[in-house]
Amino acid sequence: MKLWDKGFSTDKKIDHFTVGNDRELDLLLAKYDVMASTAHAKMLGKIGLLSEGETASLVDELDEIQSSIKKGTFTIENSFEDMHSKIEFLLTEKLGDTGKKIHTARSRNDQVLVAMHLYLKDELTEIKSQTKALFDLLMDLAEKHKEVLLPGYTHLQIAMPSSFGLWFSAYAESLIDDLYFIDAAYKIVDQNPLGSAAGYGSSFPIDRKYTTKEMGFTTMKYNVVAAQMGRGKVEKATAFGMASIAATLSKMAMDICLYMSQNFDFILFPDALTTGSSIMPHKKNPDVFELVRAKCNKLQAVPNQLTLVINNLPSGYHRDLQLVKEIIVPAIQDMKACLEILTFSLKEIRVNKNILEDPKYDYLFSVDTLNELVQNGMPFRDAYKKMGQEIQEGTFAPKRNISHSHEGSLGNLCLDEIKKKMDKIS
Amino acid sequence: MKLWDKGFSTDKKIDHFTVGNDRELDLLLAKYDVMASTAHAKMLGKIGLLSEGETASLVDELDEIQSSIKKGTFTIENSFEDMHSKIEFLLTEKLGDTGKKIHTARSRNDQVLVAMHLYLKDELTEIKSQTKALFDLLMDLAEKHKEVLLPGYTHLQIAMPSSFGLWFSAYAESLIDDLYFIDAAYKIVDQNPLGSAAGYGSSFPIDRKYTTKEMGFTTMKYNVVAAQMGRGKVEKATAFGMASIAATLSKMAMDICLYMSQNFDFILFPDALTTGSSIMPHKKNPDVFELVRAKCNKLQAVPNQLTLVINNLPSGYHRDLQLVKEIIVPAIQDMKACLEILTFSLKEIRVNKNILEDPKYDYLFSVDTLNELVQNGMPFRDAYKKMGQEIQEGTFAPKRNISHSHEGSLGNLCLDEIKKKMDKIS
Amino acid sequence: MKLWDKGFSTDKKIDHFTVGNDRELDLLLAKYDVMASTAHAKMLGKIGLLSEGETASLVDELDEIQSSIKKGTFTIENSFEDMHSKIEFLLTEKLGDTGKKIHTARSRNDQVLVAMHLYLKDELTEIKSQTKALFDLLMDLAEKHKEVLLPGYTHLQIAMPSSFGLWFSAYAESLIDDLYFIDAAYKIVDQNPLGSAAGYGSSFPIDRKYTTKEMGFTTMKYNVVAAQMGRGKVEKATAFGMASIAATLSKMAMDICLYMSQNFDFILFPDALTTGSSIMPHKKNPDVFELVRAKCNKLQAVPNQLTLVINNLPSGYHRDLQLVKEIIVPAIQDMKACLEILTFSLKEIRVNKNILEDPKYDYLFSVDTLNELVQNGMPFRDAYKKMGQEIQEGTFAPKRNISHSHEGSLGNLCLDEIKKKMDKIS
Amino acid sequence: MKLWDKGFSTDKKIDHFTVGNDRELDLLLAKYDVMASTAHAKMLGKIGLLSEGETASLVDELDEIQSSIKKGTFTIENSFEDMHSKIEFLLTEKLGDTGKKIHTARSRNDQVLVAMHLYLKDELTEIKSQTKALFDLLMDLAEKHKEVLLPGYTHLQIAMPSSFGLWFSAYAESLIDDLYFIDAAYKIVDQNPLGSAAGYGSSFPIDRKYTTKEMGFTTMKYNVVAAQMGRGKVEKATAFGMASIAATLSKMAMDICLYMSQNFDFILFPDALTTGSSIMPHKKNPDVFELVRAKCNKLQAVPNQLTLVINNLPSGYHRDLQLVKEIIVPAIQDMKACLEILTFSLKEIRVNKNILEDPKYDYLFSVDTLNELVQNGMPFRDAYKKMGQEIQEGTFAPKRNISHSHEGSLGNLCLDEIKKKMDKIS
Repeated sequence: MKLWDKGFSTDKKIDHFTVGNDRELDLLLAKYDVMASTAHAKMLGKIGLLSEGETASLVDELDEIQSSIKKGTFTIENSFEDMHSKIEFLLTEKLGDTGKKIHTARSRNDQVLVAMHLYLKDELTEIKSQTKALFDLLMDLAEKHKEVLLPGYTHLQIAMPSSFGLWFSAYAESLIDDLYFIDAAYKIVDQNPLGSAAGYGSSFPIDRKYTTKEMGFTTMKYNVVAAQMGRGKVEKATAFGMASIAATLSKMAMDICLYMSQNFDFILFPDALTTGSSIMPHKKNPDVFELVRAKCNKLQAVPNQLTLVINNLPSGYHRDLQLVKEIIVPAIQDMKACLEILTFSLKEIRVNKNILEDPKYDYLFSVDTLNELVQNGMPFRDAYKKMGQEIQEGTFAPKRNISHSHEGSLGNLCLDEIKKKMDKIS
Repeated sequence: MKLWDKGFSTDKKIDHFTVGNDRELDLLLAKYDVMASTAHAKMLGKIGLLSEGETASLVDELDEIQSSIKKGTFTIENSFEDMHSKIEFLLTEKLGDTGKKIHTARSRNDQVLVAMHLYLKDELTEIKSQTKALFDLLMDLAEKHKEVLLPGYTHLQIAMPSSFGLWFSAYAESLIDDLYFIDAAYKIVDQNPLGSAAGYGSSFPIDRKYTTKEMGFTTMKYNVVAAQMGRGKVEKATAFGMASIAATLSKMAMDICLYMSQNFDFILFPDALTTGSSIMPHKKNPDVFELVRAKCNKLQAVPNQLTLVINNLPSGYHRDLQLVKEIIVPAIQDMKACLEILTFSLKEIRVNKNILEDPKYDYLFSVDTLNELVQNGMPFRDAYKKMGQEIQEGTFAPKRNISHSHEGSLGNLCLDEIKKKMDKIS
Repeated sequence: MKLWDKGFSTDKKIDHFTVGNDRELDLLLAKYDVMASTAHAKMLGKIGLLSEGETASLVDELDEIQSSIKKGTFTIENSFEDMHSKIEFLLTEKLGDTGKKIHTARSRNDQVLVAMHLYLKDELTEIKSQTKALFDLLMDLAEKHKEVLLPGYTHLQIAMPSSFGLWFSAYAESLIDDLYFIDAAYKIVDQNPLGSAAGYGSSFPIDRKYTTKEMGFTTMKYNVVAAQMGRGKVEKATAFGMASIAATLSKMAMDICLYMSQNFDFILFPDALTTGSSIMPHKKNPDVFELVRAKCNKLQAVPNQLTLVINNLPSGYHRDLQLVKEIIVPAIQDMKACLEILTFSLKEIRVNKNILEDPKYDYLFSVDTLNELVQNGMPFRDAYKKMGQEIQEGTFAPKRNISHSHEGSLGNLCLDEIKKKMDKIS
Repeated sequence: MKLWDKGFSTDKKIDHFTVGNDRELDLLLAKYDVMASTAHAKMLGKIGLLSEGETASLVDELDEIQSSIKKGTFTIENSFEDMHSKIEFLLTEKLGDTGKKIHTARSRNDQVLVAMHLYLKDELTEIKSQTKALFDLLMDLAEKHKEVLLPGYTHLQIAMPSSFGLWFSAYAESLIDDLYFIDAAYKIVDQNPLGSAAGYGSSFPIDRKYTTKEMGFTTMKYNVVAAQMGRGKVEKATAFGMASIAATLSKMAMDICLYMSQNFDFILFPDALTTGSSIMPHKKNPDVFELVRAKCNKLQAVPNQLTLVINNLPSGYHRDLQLVKEIIVPAIQDMKACLEILTFSLKEIRVNKNILEDPKYDYLFSVDTLNELVQNGMPFRDAYKKMGQEIQEGTFAPKRNISHSHEGSLGNLCLDEIKKKMDKIS
């Protein structure tokens, strides 16, 4: 059954090719389609295109469907093209012609669009909340391990003293930046597109302010052509935000995999969080973190995927836009899974406390020693040469008493200030 | 049941996160794992690590499994991590310790790798065959419609006369270039990686020449580290080849969507190949071609997806590489679906024969008219000015008798020469 | 002369390979390096690492250099590795050892980083201002041409009535969304990174609050490791914002190129804004808009370029990060050039007022006619069938009196509401 | 001076925006434009459109220009749009109307196109030759250091014994795969496009077989529309080939940077090939290899850049295509620079011979020890458990006598077989 059935049967092959895996994805989106349909029905009642009774019975029936979605009993059989067809079928089955009337003054295009906006609002909220949970954990770990020193590298060469306090809270502070993008994406999706119909509005006197309020949007995407152009764009905005978080997570996962290597041996995790090898009995592999890295790297490819699909299309709807759904929905699931598993796993991290005792890290202290000479009055150039000579001659004796005290340094992590920055994000 | 079970149970969450949708994808790959396992078992027999009887019973049992795969009765339950675990389970269930011995002198890493090589060989062969079928159809259409003229555009401005003969065979000749990349990818995958084990070879005296021949590879990837580095690389090679074909198909689909617009009206398709609109009864939309375009554009994003996942990883296996499977396998299915549907649909194309009668296309003939003046002795500069003046004054009278005769021009399509080029591709 | 000269001469080849085109790019960035150096010098004075006299002479000398940069007389000769070396050379030449002291408590890494933050703040401000200018123009054009109708397309098929009012203001409202990303990027760059030194802070008691205030940053990037991790990340944030604007501009350019084609003929531009052809005297090509499209499409590739360069690098500085400068700086220049030329050119746009008189656009009115039947009481399904029949029989007579009145529709563009949305962006 | 001057002056702003940095890039391409112009002039003489005298004087003058290009005295002043304008100006200045006649039967579009094909042929040949030089060096290094053992990692965990022989020759064998793509790209560019004119051929009876032979192309791109569609496509083919090499080089550079870290300490380079730090006197940083990695990662972004610029453009020339030149030409220079510097630098590599003496590498031998138990008759499962127990109890005593003997393993590198594979590439 198709909404646009014109009396001739479309070839099956074509049908299979064009529908794709829409039904599966629509199970996640159906909730939002019903929310929007309910608001639309109420609005049609308000402007007199539906009678009070019609409105009430549509709203009731949609509530029923919403319940079945919550319970997990809602299904989209292969005989239906998508959730929209199925829902309209259910309404018509129960309500006859009244069921059909839900389709007045809207188009499948804006149904899909408004459901996507609502869906993205929810998911961005969830992603933000998960990111904040990870932030909180990282800040706690920074506080807990702030005294434990780490070698700091530049060019992967041993460079200067760092600490677990610095390392954990660096990723925390980075996540704040990522949330600025999530917030930008949220602002973009928090605009009601319903009413754009096929992308050019409607001759019905619909009340878009009403549906905006009813669905809880902060504002509307006024221009109906702009609203339609949001298709693909709202998904890309979300993808930019996720790519930003993913870059931070991927980098941290890279550090973790390196630090778990026997050549670094800075951290470890309990056996339950590592995996083994079929032929190397001593291995305890960081699969979880490798997969976080890989999934987050794949997530960083999503903006480009979306761009390639929607780019250089003139304005107006094109069927190409259907494909963005199958790109963004699984990407969001991956993002949430990565945030969850990373928070879950990092709780169990164990840090090695005596890392810097290994003499290969002695050089870490050369800069501080140099600085001390300078602070005691030796010109930088002379101090620099003296140090270089001592190092080449092997007479360099590091002073291990580190006293970094400025804002953001290992002796003064400014965790409270960082938390305040995060708190400013609503 | 996991191959690397070490006596402690890995957290369920982790398990779910790390396994992903491997089981589903593995149903497509199981055939190749069994092929490779059979070759491996025979080789173990040949070098004396298995007795004749053990070898025979393993080969028999693997044949049994291969049959169940062909019949579609092979399954991978959630209790198994992947196809490798399931197949080993089946062997052990039947053959006890002999079943376990199949794992001698190999690693899951090179099992996955060799199965992927075999799978890609088959799929590249299929893609090539489908591409050739599309090529043949385009060449037939070029021959059939070679007399029908089309406006040729530059800058989307009406420019010079073209023809359906030129248009169809242009895409055909372009596909030949794309197959050069498919052939390059094939050469890369047609090298036996089995024997690299975990990426560093084995202390068992395995006979890689034997398995190379047994599985029908042209050569082997000798260096075991190089073989392991092929993971991700063979998939990317395939993705490059597909991206090349996809770019050609996407461009043709863009032309088709434009040419079906009422503003061009150059071609049409029967109703069964177009779709309708829920509120615009007159629409016959080119959804099939829009989705070919969109899917082919998504396919062009695959090389970058793979690059992001595997890039900047130091040598040696990382679990990240598991993710390439979930990228490449669906992409291959999309590629084949696009090739099939395009060939299926283009058979039904109908071309409008009187396009150039519309006076807006008169200017198409200006260059030829100019050339005639030049050939009749007028200096180019003077002819160019005379024409420009006539056009501005509205006195330009186009000469519609086109006589393009050079190689590859609309009067001399060189279809045979183009076919010969294709024939050179084995 | 190099800061890290250790007494042995590095091979010339290596020198050439590693320096690249840094000097050229640094001419754009030198202003910001001097600003940051001045703040740093004052801070060193404040905390007593420089005497009052030293501070004053350094600040004076830096002012001198800043003047020469403004006048365009500042140069970076090939004997200098980069702007930092040249500036330190100038200071030392004039002030001797005092000149050297500017390097106390900082590293080239954080010099580059803070200069980039300051540079990006300025450029993002400029991009925002240019975007607002384009927005204003588009809103004016929407108001001016709000009565002129356009065909609205879906699937590139003639669909429903649109208008130049809708078309212009759709791109205007879309630009607001893009500025949300520019604002997010601005927030990220508006954090002082100075003090991270080589990425792990300093043992000198530097006063980062002071330099933050002195340079006009809203806050600081507290954690020194996070500050260093900003390298590449701030550029990518900027690239995301630009990619967002670029997508909007590219789409508009695509529309313009299509609409200028003789097959649409909706708009035109004066001769001075089009270009000609060497052999087709009648052509007036939209090169400007094609290049806006192409440059904006290239700009959309920038986030991925940056990601590929910085991805999967463990934390800490790597020389790889030098390359982000040569990617982001020219991209910013391209972005500004596109915004400028588009605003410049669109001022001259001329719209064709009688487009819909062509009978091929009659079908545009079918949906409105259908809606009228529905509003007059006919069930949607029946109305839909009646219309379809009339269209197939050729008896359909469109009612051309359009009365779209809801928010954002062509009869009610809500330009004031859209302006208010823009005004909320500081 | 512009070829398409129509009597009205195009706005300066537009001029600046549209010309871009074409003149600079054209200095690299001018040689190929002159080659193609010479072939074109001879052909015009052959078919009688030029007299013998005209042909001779054009060919002489073009030889003159070619000499000035070789000598480096050829320039393109700002008064010329591009090399084509400048060359035509020089011809006309000397030969008057005869100079103008070179433009008969061709268009700037196919001039640019054929010059690009010729340029790419030369550059691909050079890249291949450089790649083979690197291959030869890696094979020599593999032979030289074949006895020196390295730890082999999986998941960055110490796994199994590897060797410098394996490591060097793994990258060598990988480069062979990359050359399959370079060869595919070469086949695509080695087709003469000249004669496509503006993309639809010409009404002049040009002899494309003659120019094909004259310029040394193996075949021609017959279909003139296909030839024009090659614009962007030949560059992308080249970019795919380079991306393939770049991925191999980038990975090797990543290994090198890791192995130079004090945490691995596997290799080192002489001081002249490393760089220092402004505040850390002991550092010897692998800048060269970091920049090889970064540039090669940037090169891997090129196919996507090109795709974004040319994708979803309908057939026919668009000005967008001008932009591919500024993407591909610098990319090729980067590719060659990376190949050259890597070959130059690797010659100086010094390998640490006693790496495996560190007890943390003892576990490397566990698999071989396990295999020995199995070869001596213990079932795999039992052997695996025994080993695991010994390792956990700390009683594991590794047997360090490695005897890997199969093809491609560390005891049998098959360097000759790998060389034979390379030799098959012409």
